[in-house]
Amino acid sequence: MKKIVQCVPNFSEGRDLEKIERIVEPFRGKDGVKLLDYQRDEDHNRVVVTVVGEPEPLKNAVVEAMGAAIDVIDMTKHEGQHPRMGAVDVVPFIPIRNVSMTEAIELSKEVAKEASERYNLPIFLYEKSATRPERENLAKIRKGQFEGMAEKLQKPEWKPDFGPDKVHPTAGVTAVGARMPLVAYNVNLDTDNIEIANQIARKVRHINGGLRYCKAIGVELKDRGIVQVSMNMTDYTKTALYRVFELIKIEARRYGVNVVGSEVIGLVPMEALIDSAVYYMGIEDFSMDQVLETRIME
Amino acid sequence: MKKIVQCVPNFSEGRDLEKIERIVEPFRGKDGVKLLDYQRDEDHNRVVVTVVGEPEPLKNAVVEAMGAAIDVIDMTKHEGQHPRMGAVDVVPFIPIRNVSMTEAIELSKEVAKEASERYNLPIFLYEKSATRPERENLAKIRKGQFEGMAEKLQKPEWKPDFGPDKVHPTAGVTAVGARMPLVAYNVNLDTDNIEIANQIARKVRHINGGLRYCKAIGVELKDRGIVQVSMNMTDYTKTALYRVFELIKIEARRYGVNVVGSEVIGLVPMEALIDSAVYYMGIEDFSMDQVLETRIME
Repeated sequence: MKKIVQCVPNFSEGRDLEKIERIVEPFRGKDGVKLLDYQRDEDHNRVVVTVVGEPEPLKNAVVEAMGAAIDVIDMTKHEGQHPRMGAVDVVPFIPIRNVSMTEAIELSKEVAKEASERYNLPIFLYEKSATRPERENLAKIRKGQFEGMAEKLQKPEWKPDFGPDKVHPTAGVTAVGARMPLVAYNVNLDTDNIEIANQIARKVRHINGGLRYCKAIGVELKDRGIVQVSMNMTDYTKTALYRVFELIKIEARRYGVNVVGSEVIGLVPMEALIDSAVYYMGIEDFSMDQVLETRIME
Repeated sequence: MKKIVQCVPNFSEGRDLEKIERIVEPFRGKDGVKLLDYQRDEDHNRVVVTVVGEPEPLKNAVVEAMGAAIDVIDMTKHEGQHPRMGAVDVVPFIPIRNVSMTEAIELSKEVAKEASERYNLPIFLYEKSATRPERENLAKIRKGQFEGMAEKLQKPEWKPDFGPDKVHPTAGVTAVGARMPLVAYNVNLDTDNIEIANQIARKVRHINGGLRYCKAIGVELKDRGIVQVSMNMTDYTKTALYRVFELIKIEARRYGVNVVGSEVIGLVPMEALIDSAVYYMGIEDFSMDQVLETRIME
């Protein structure tokens, strides 16, 4: 059975197409690696690459792309709206098929070790790969951004997991780790009152007492005159999409508003949706092995 | 984008493991062909093979397996509970990925032509490949079974589409065609009254005024003391699973019974379930291209 891992590296270049092409080039035309997408944002000055592959060829391609980014990006001249700390800002690995989280963590550590040695780059392990709890959250690692990293790395508690104890002069610092697939899932309400969306977001999200693997905020859809609860579901295998959808319907009643639809942004693993179908139709004893595509991909 | 077709050939041997092995052997260890499953039934004296592959290698493997079955099966000595007319009884091709029904029909005709010439075998095209309406339904073609085929083929309206006008002495007659994937879907009721399941089956199935791509009967689940509406959904892209599930809930009210669950038997294309999740969660503007596995398989 073929093992498939996804990687969604974020590089700090969103404007120069030639540089972006050099960065994504290592993901093209390689056996065992498939470039699914890359989205650049000029305001963020950042490109987000989505690639899948078998562990070994994926690892090699990612390390190569990191090298290309370090070659072409000079962080001392970088400006953009998105927080960032390095030319290769963050490199998450996501287990997709026939791969355990343990294996994804192992892969992230191999990449961190190899890239840190090859490019003399300080690297923090984050999320599931983190070596201590305060390094799980990327925002905490990145706090201070590129400009503050030289000082931050002097603190003993911010000694990098791999590589030198000081910032790379032009490439800064990188975070590498393993995490579950993110599903961007939004639920629309038939009101234009953003406060209602914010209130519901607070009730369903983990941080305020809601579902464990749900991050949520209220968002206005001005052109439609409605609001939505905009979410990142950080582990759909434990916090199912249907559960947050039904919970928002329940919370909406308090305000006399209705759920009028939902949306999935970007890619979603089939299991996240199939699990919801199995719930709604009460399908007994269902196994993902019954899904034809699962068998085709084996 | 890789084209994937499924084939579910039925061969008239369900008892002799050595013969069965010779029949399935052509599906093993070939590039572009994957044997997913084969289920033999001793009472039916029949084996049902499920295989997927790219059109050309799949075609070659199927023709080869047909030859093996013709070699090892003698229909003059065959007996079993399932209706049958040939050593290779029926060979359906099913478009799965990046393949149109037109292409699947074309593939079925190529297989029919090649097998009829190579094995001197009379072949009827059926289902979507049928050359006239009365040949769409396999049951009508197979009526009279192996023993009645010699006489049936003498009638001008039953001249085979390919091969000789007379039955193969030991291999009989074969039907080859293209069809949509079948989904075996059952809905359970909290009653032991089979008549209620039968009544509901009649209301939801096509033949009695129900949904176009639904075949249904009532079935008793004696060990659980309940009954179910047992269905074959013959085109889930047009008659969605959620639609028949909700319709059965509505019909059940008439009898004061409730739907207590459902089941999917065997393999199901992911789209059949994802489409239902999209319905229940009101997901707007969803595209199957957003499913990660769709992109991995491209």
